[in-house]
Amino acid sequence: MDDRIREHASILVDWSARVDPGDNVVVSVAEGAHDLAVAVAEALGERGASMVTTYDSAELSRAYLRANGEDNSEAAFDDTPSHELALIEHADVYLRLGGGRNTAATADVPAATRQAYRRSRTDIREARLATDWVSTVHPTRSLAQQAGMSLEAYRDFVYDAVLRDWASLAEEMAQLKTILDDADEVRIEGPETDLRLSIADRTAVNSAASVAYDSHNLPSGEVFTAPAEAEGTIRFDVPMTVDGSPIRNAAFTIEENTVVDYRAEQGEAVLGDVLDTDDGARRLGELGIGMNRGIDRVTDRILFDEKMAETVHLAVGRAYDACLPEGDSGNDSAVHVDLLTDMSKESRLVVDGETIQRNGTFRWEDGFDAESA
Amino acid sequence: MDDRIREHASILVDWSARVDPGDNVVVSVAEGAHDLAVAVAEALGERGASMVTTYDSAELSRAYLRANGEDNSEAAFDDTPSHELALIEHADVYLRLGGGRNTAATADVPAATRQAYRRSRTDIREARLATDWVSTVHPTRSLAQQAGMSLEAYRDFVYDAVLRDWASLAEEMAQLKTILDDADEVRIEGPETDLRLSIADRTAVNSAASVAYDSHNLPSGEVFTAPAEAEGTIRFDVPMTVDGSPIRNAAFTIEENTVVDYRAEQGEAVLGDVLDTDDGARRLGELGIGMNRGIDRVTDRILFDEKMAETVHLAVGRAYDACLPEGDSGNDSAVHVDLLTDMSKESRLVVDGETIQRNGTFRWEDGFDAESA
Repeated sequence: MDDRIREHASILVDWSARVDPGDNVVVSVAEGAHDLAVAVAEALGERGASMVTTYDSAELSRAYLRANGEDNSEAAFDDTPSHELALIEHADVYLRLGGGRNTAATADVPAATRQAYRRSRTDIREARLATDWVSTVHPTRSLAQQAGMSLEAYRDFVYDAVLRDWASLAEEMAQLKTILDDADEVRIEGPETDLRLSIADRTAVNSAASVAYDSHNLPSGEVFTAPAEAEGTIRFDVPMTVDGSPIRNAAFTIEENTVVDYRAEQGEAVLGDVLDTDDGARRLGELGIGMNRGIDRVTDRILFDEKMAETVHLAVGRAYDACLPEGDSGNDSAVHVDLLTDMSKESRLVVDGETIQRNGTFRWEDGFDAESA
Repeated sequence: MDDRIREHASILVDWSARVDPGDNVVVSVAEGAHDLAVAVAEALGERGASMVTTYDSAELSRAYLRANGEDNSEAAFDDTPSHELALIEHADVYLRLGGGRNTAATADVPAATRQAYRRSRTDIREARLATDWVSTVHPTRSLAQQAGMSLEAYRDFVYDAVLRDWASLAEEMAQLKTILDDADEVRIEGPETDLRLSIADRTAVNSAASVAYDSHNLPSGEVFTAPAEAEGTIRFDVPMTVDGSPIRNAAFTIEENTVVDYRAEQGEAVLGDVLDTDDGARRLGELGIGMNRGIDRVTDRILFDEKMAETVHLAVGRAYDACLPEGDSGNDSAVHVDLLTDMSKESRLVVDGETIQRNGTFRWEDGFDAESA
């Protein structure tokens, strides 16, 4: 076994999920995640945890969902599956090991069937969110293909992102969190970009890939908050896929906290559909600042892309509760779509008038020069 | 998908497990059973059942068990895993889809670790036996190898055994059950074989691969009972593997219901170990009569071998409760080891003095001749 798989499992179990002896752990294993699951099983055995493994197969889901839809016997979707709910309700930890064999495996499941199934599983989802849950992925050929990379290169990419010194990164991110928590305004400057965001009463999340930080993705490595108001223009020059369609060089003009104008070299119509979803879809729900220097390229998978160092992302739509003042419901919407901006060149992140990042380098990093071109 | 996989799934779900709409079904998927699992998912979707899939990986088990044993943190084995128990207790149906990728995958797990783990799971096993459970296997390369067959040939073999007209076979087996239920004595005659078994107050099981017949294996196809007494000699000329060791041409001499002499051309010592396990290990726990004409060769897997038409098998050790009179505990032992005898040549099965099978042909079948050589 590649040593990195064992390291991945060890970070997942110890740093991310904080598994204790005797914990009831559910491990959800995607079709291509067998090798990581073996390493996780070993780690859980060493720590004396109890393990149940579920098989998270996109091909099984497709077969089940299509068959159920076919003869309209949607009875099974009416109620929460009580055996699955019982399993999750008795779990302390839920580890989702992604890594399928075909990212399009469920492409021919009707949307209505998907939605009915999802609705029937609300209680299960809530029970899962009440555990110490963590999502990660094992590098598979399918994901490498999605990223446009060879399997070997993709493995290197994933492990560079996952096998970080998380404690040290958490400390660094804590600095940024403190700066944002104390601040009233963030200003993003760059080519075709000059955006002011009010964050006066908002709380930033130090997303350090651990349940101890209320962070449930491995890898993680971003600090994010929910802007209260926005004004200005921004260009999103990092390629993205939204609802299966590529978006290239999108740009927003925001007035009085609302996207009043948008354009994109590619995918403009899809972007329009997103913004027209509901009122909240024209307002910002998130400002995220990528800080994971292990992620140095875009792979068209948001789990990685949004944590990439020297980028920021804004999401239109729903805001995260953790960022909001007590009792404030924040921006509400059925969507939450992230768009990314490269900050590595001719760019500046300014907090309450003070430059905290210039061309991708934070002020506490070597080579920082607030005035450099 | 091979049509036979869908047929297999359909027999499993409808004939064997009798799945109803709304049933909570747990599907346990072995490493190599993915394709059958897809077909089962489709069948469960069509029938409107709720499905949870667990991943039954020998490699994960090995990693987990060895790691747990290593630093003696056996705490996790002390208690029943309550999340797994909750899952099973809320299940109506449990479908075990066997078919691994290496029959020796757990060969290096210490026996003590295995036993400790098994003991911790008594409640889960009992909960599973309380469901409508069925075990079957998907033909994998590993099982083909164990059988000494190509994958293609092994697939044909498995589907010949599984894709029977079970309703019709159940009717045929019911005839034999009636004969045995009404009888006092079975006599097995053949080369080096003349054994009398008393079955006066015993009840035969029509093992027709369906929970409706209290039969939990697919394939099945045998009628079995528990002899009360035995006297005589028998040769077991069908090759077997017991505790990992080959047994060839074993023979027993039985006096007053006890194996007083045994020999084997190969594996005699292993056979001796089995018989010396405890007192009950020298007495017979089962007489089984194979009736599945889809199984026409030995594959060294008891799930198939013991159902092979034109064979009988005797087990030393534990008897099945279903065969015993109310309140009779039957032969008790820690072991239950089956040994097979070919009945296709120079052999006769005689019940209360009447020949019911001659050279493998039952009296209700074409070509039966009670007096033929």
